[in-house]
Amino acid sequence: MASELNLGVTCDMHVHLREGSMMELVAPTVREGGVSVAYVMPNLQPPVTTIDRVVEYKKKIQGLAPQTTFLMSFYLSKELTPELIHEAASRKAIRGVKCYPAGVTTNSAAGVDPNDFSAFYPVFEAMEKENLVLNLHGEKPSVNDGKQAEDIHVLNAEESFLPALKKLHSDFPNLKIILEHCTTEAAIKAIEDINKDVKDSKDIKVAATITAHHLYLTIDDWAGNPINFCKPVAKLPKDKRALVSAAISGKPYFFFGSDSAPHPLESKSRHMGVCAGVFSQSLAIPYLAQIFEEQQSLDKLKGFVTDFPTQFYQVPHSDLKSLDEAVVYKQKQVVPPTISDKQGLLVAPFLAGSKLNWSVKWIAK
Amino acid sequence: MASELNLGVTCDMHVHLREGSMMELVAPTVREGGVSVAYVMPNLQPPVTTIDRVVEYKKKIQGLAPQTTFLMSFYLSKELTPELIHEAASRKAIRGVKCYPAGVTTNSAAGVDPNDFSAFYPVFEAMEKENLVLNLHGEKPSVNDGKQAEDIHVLNAEESFLPALKKLHSDFPNLKIILEHCTTEAAIKAIEDINKDVKDSKDIKVAATITAHHLYLTIDDWAGNPINFCKPVAKLPKDKRALVSAAISGKPYFFFGSDSAPHPLESKSRHMGVCAGVFSQSLAIPYLAQIFEEQQSLDKLKGFVTDFPTQFYQVPHSDLKSLDEAVVYKQKQVVPPTISDKQGLLVAPFLAGSKLNWSVKWIAK
Repeated sequence: MASELNLGVTCDMHVHLREGSMMELVAPTVREGGVSVAYVMPNLQPPVTTIDRVVEYKKKIQGLAPQTTFLMSFYLSKELTPELIHEAASRKAIRGVKCYPAGVTTNSAAGVDPNDFSAFYPVFEAMEKENLVLNLHGEKPSVNDGKQAEDIHVLNAEESFLPALKKLHSDFPNLKIILEHCTTEAAIKAIEDINKDVKDSKDIKVAATITAHHLYLTIDDWAGNPINFCKPVAKLPKDKRALVSAAISGKPYFFFGSDSAPHPLESKSRHMGVCAGVFSQSLAIPYLAQIFEEQQSLDKLKGFVTDFPTQFYQVPHSDLKSLDEAVVYKQKQVVPPTISDKQGLLVAPFLAGSKLNWSVKWIAK
Repeated sequence: MASELNLGVTCDMHVHLREGSMMELVAPTVREGGVSVAYVMPNLQPPVTTIDRVVEYKKKIQGLAPQTTFLMSFYLSKELTPELIHEAASRKAIRGVKCYPAGVTTNSAAGVDPNDFSAFYPVFEAMEKENLVLNLHGEKPSVNDGKQAEDIHVLNAEESFLPALKKLHSDFPNLKIILEHCTTEAAIKAIEDINKDVKDSKDIKVAATITAHHLYLTIDDWAGNPINFCKPVAKLPKDKRALVSAAISGKPYFFFGSDSAPHPLESKSRHMGVCAGVFSQSLAIPYLAQIFEEQQSLDKLKGFVTDFPTQFYQVPHSDLKSLDEAVVYKQKQVVPPTISDKQGLLVAPFLAGSKLNWSVKWIAK
């Protein structure tokens, strides 16, 4: 087995970099974790919905991580208009728009009602024309009022969303859509089904990102361990197996999006109201390499983290801030208990205290 | 609707009273919560497996709560012999034996392998002869090694245990067995099925206890709220509905066992290794009255908390420490954020900060 693997210009198509001191702490960890291109989530407070704000935000994170290529996004909300989409696209301010169903995760209160996207159809039409990507947090909000035929809860929230995904694709067949951080066997099957007749990977319209942590976790791992609590929650062992199979499948519509979501350690150590999110940025590629090695599929890692996301997002070479190539190599390391800044901000990385077989380095180009 | 209801000599057939300062804090809360007779769990460290220890433990808690009737139990382990069971029964030291599958909950490391109870059959035979109750924590330990046909995880751990329950009943048809703190529709159906031909409630051999918190909680309530994390975990909305239906059914094989399990607040506010357990002792009967009222079934509450458990356990009148009767009455109260002792031990009660419609008082007899 190879002890070193050149992954090229790697991508993580779902990162949370926050603002303020948290941003200062985590923005540099994108590169430390082996990632060159990062697609940045817009769920700040208030959400990012203007060109000025997205430009200003990008400038800040770029200043903290000059060699990382940041692709930016808008937060889907009533503030977005088709005109704004066209202008943002022509100015290359954004690469896509993130859709949060209201109330399902961190800073999603300004999100949309996933039972009826019709109010946003003019925006989607503009996005389709501009070749922008629609990033879906694919969960229905929980319903448990005893009135409706089918309850919705954290375990079936993603599966309940899949018909809405299919309808969107059917209504906008040329709109690029990603089901972000998918967690279920049902979602994997739905994405495979949508792509079953796609002959050329350039024609893929609907893809799914898979996180590193969902390749490790099941419900048992977050029951009693809030550090592993995230949305969508990790599901059952059969779902985890389906995600691992998809990640190593070499199918170009499954690629990496870490959904790395840092929270101060004290926000994860509460008896109520624990923040949802797993922080995996600082060791993103080593986490993945570990799983791909276990599955004897290291040869599939470059597709998952580089080739497929680059192709789907059509990242132009000229936009890259660095052509350096990420190399994973076999060298054990222990995940530190926390990462911190000088002011005492603490974030616990995923699998803190565990051993990983792989490390990452950069080859300058 | 009645604004006051005499429940008689109420029972909670599953309580954790701990030791030391926690015991001093919570033992008096049995009566404060409206309960007269409490069946006490033996999962101390080390577990309670001798007559001397059970006598000593009972003496301590009795001293803290002189008006409460405590029924005591042994912890099923290799230390128990048929001779010990006969002696404990003849000395009236215990009313039953609690069986913990190894590794499923707080202080269960010394428990048994639920895949094979045969080593304990001589003990069960002695218990059957002595009319002692076998209290089952009905969960299979999690299995997720990819080797076995069916995964076991926190969601299906109880349902996976039900065949073992049925086999035990079939092998010891006269042994009184309780499936403790049942949490699933599948468990409710299994208990109903076992009892379908029972004509006289005196002939019930297999019963189930239901907690107060499982009448409120579903998976969504403990995802991100470790205070609500317990074993067995609260399941799906359909399961909660089945539990509520069983509790208000008036079927004498479903009765109250709170599984009130206090932990220091700091053990519930961790990012890893949160202790499993919900503390509901101090307001046990008001929590129940709230649900029974919502279901317009207050007339069924006395059966659930008094008549059915008294009959199943055959609590002799002469053993009661007090004949006082618990009365729930309509008076709103707010669940306090914590209960505490003078040394700063803090325990957060179930539904801290919420309003309850009912309070409880005692009528001296």
